Amino acid sequence: MTSVVNGRVLFNSIPKASIEPGKTLIVDKSETIDPEKAALNGGILLKIVILSVDPYMRTLMNAPDPKKGLLHTYTPGQPIAGLGIAEVVRTETDEVKVGDHVHGFMPFQNYLILPGLAAGVTPFKVLENKFNLPWTYFVGVLGLTGQTAYMAWKEFSKAKEGETVFVTSGAGAVGSIVIQIAKKQGLKVIASAGSEEKLKYMKSLGADVVFNYKTTQTAEVLGREGPIDIYWDNVGGETLDAALLAANFKARFIECGLMASFGGKPAPIQNFEHAIAKNITIYGFTLTPIYPKYEKEFYDTWPELVANGEIKHKEHLFHGLEGVEQGVVAFQDGSNVGKAVIVL
Amino acid sequence: MTSVVNGRVLFNSIPKASIEPGKTLIVDKSETIDPEKAALNGGILLKIVILSVDPYMRTLMNAPDPKKGLLHTYTPGQPIAGLGIAEVVRTETDEVKVGDHVHGFMPFQNYLILPGLAAGVTPFKVLENKFNLPWTYFVGVLGLTGQTAYMAWKEFSKAKEGETVFVTSGAGAVGSIVIQIAKKQGLKVIASAGSEEKLKYMKSLGADVVFNYKTTQTAEVLGREGPIDIYWDNVGGETLDAALLAANFKARFIECGLMASFGGKPAPIQNFEHAIAKNITIYGFTLTPIYPKYEKEFYDTWPELVANGEIKHKEHLFHGLEGVEQGVVAFQDGSNVGKAVIVL
Repeated sequence: MTSVVNGRVLFNSIPKASIEPGKTLIVDKSETIDPEKAALNGGILLKIVILSVDPYMRTLMNAPDPKKGLLHTYTPGQPIAGLGIAEVVRTETDEVKVGDHVHGFMPFQNYLILPGLAAGVTPFKVLENKFNLPWTYFVGVLGLTGQTAYMAWKEFSKAKEGETVFVTSGAGAVGSIVIQIAKKQGLKVIASAGSEEKLKYMKSLGADVVFNYKTTQTAEVLGREGPIDIYWDNVGGETLDAALLAANFKARFIECGLMASFGGKPAPIQNFEHAIAKNITIYGFTLTPIYPKYEKEFYDTWPELVANGEIKHKEHLFHGLEGVEQGVVAFQDGSNVGKAVIVL
Repeated sequence: MTSVVNGRVLFNSIPKASIEPGKTLIVDKSETIDPEKAALNGGILLKIVILSVDPYMRTLMNAPDPKKGLLHTYTPGQPIAGLGIAEVVRTETDEVKVGDHVHGFMPFQNYLILPGLAAGVTPFKVLENKFNLPWTYFVGVLGLTGQTAYMAWKEFSKAKEGETVFVTSGAGAVGSIVIQIAKKQGLKVIASAGSEEKLKYMKSLGADVVFNYKTTQTAEVLGREGPIDIYWDNVGGETLDAALLAANFKARFIECGLMASFGGKPAPIQNFEHAIAKNITIYGFTLTPIYPKYEKEFYDTWPELVANGEIKHKEHLFHGLEGVEQGVVAFQDGSNVGKAVIVL
């Protein structure tokens, strides 16, 4: 075998507001690699097969801003990075065998030489797949998005049977899982999304009340169907204000994301005073700090639930390194349903 | 003894924004009572000796608003109510003896006939006073404000030695206690208030950094002296925004009050997005739900700390039923230092 192209998705320029196709990200094919002969120096040659595209990546396209907790962002001229799955092509360490699939935070490119599993931002892990599920699942329902829903719900919701939860972006990769977890626990689920197709999907997952936030006032629906005990916030802004207004005493707000401020100025919160009188606790979170506490129980239980069809999920597949930009833009314009995954 | 006037502080009209002296509250002297002969029907005749004036009373002067968690408010034409201390004048129940001092939520008037200790919104309690402290302390440092500081700090702060806390209204009845608790636990304390006299007082309580929010930018001070691990919020609005900006990873925000919205429109929050990236938990609270958990340890330990001078506090005394309005207005114009107490 001779040299092949090692394509890379480079971060080209910091977007002002929206991502600009062809300008923010570019696919570079100037590098090559010889998979049979490339020097490994005791390490592992990986061929990347699956990449995950997630909303947090938009945040990493901003300039670093330590005051916002944003220490590391993408560097112009370098490959962007995110979660992915790679197959072991050659190895000079017995940490892995040829054909193993490893999961970790990796640069978005075709091939990668890793000094060892511990070399990542967080250590790479060899995936088990005893139910022989598609590898794409391991960046979605069995990866970041499934884990975000499962772990944050466990850590923060304090859910009790008979309570009411409001889930925003309920057709998204995280929201769709939250709906199902809440229904299994006997809660009433109110869920919002922005298209008729998404409303049907949320209904099929068991949501009791679904509505299109583009055509229906959130405050009106929550006023009629609330009060809400738990708010799963993927959007912030006016929707968060409506949730504060409709919250029950001792409500829990799980702050997963603020799509309302995606790439623009955040919408100011007007109803914060409700948090005091109603003894609301508001949990801002990212997955990393709570992950270790729930990792084992997640991998012990979820693959079987997914294999049995007890947890449903959708994938939105894109193909090739060119698909990365399409996946990111789909978040921006709201056209995605389910987990955005790139298959290389 | 013949009949005497039983003066009452009546709620006259719902204020539009600020409290209007002589209009919002009026002292009525049209009722009389004969302390020796008034029929008790098995109950207790109380002479009210101390009344507590607190910021939450301004909230109760609004129209009821169940969506804001505001179910019960003052009724125009009826006496306002709040915490107070009363002396037992006569009793037909052995729950109390003549001369006992009882504490509870009571109408603001001179005399009160109680069917029994359990008859209040929450039960009345006979106060112990083994250190022979002034009774006024039992509505301040040993009452609502001391308890608010002590109990909410214990419940929510998760404070660790070496951390930094930012306390707003640090010369107030609650903030001044928070400063002292935080210093005892080895934290760095940044405290703000609105006059030079208040800054001196906060320094005397041990605050490491004090500033006048009227003449100094909060964001500038927190940028230099932060990041902050705990924010004790008595004001909300722009100050809360500055705290979000200056918060450390995993900061805890204890939301005690929003004076920025006192009697007016709440200031919108612009920096909410920081809560997610920095994994901030925001606790809205009122005292009632956490009170039972800490009541015993509070009364077991605090009277002695106060008697020893280990916990310092200030009282702002007003006299007579006419003093109630003066006390409420002092919150509004920021002229109060320490706990506002009415001595009858």
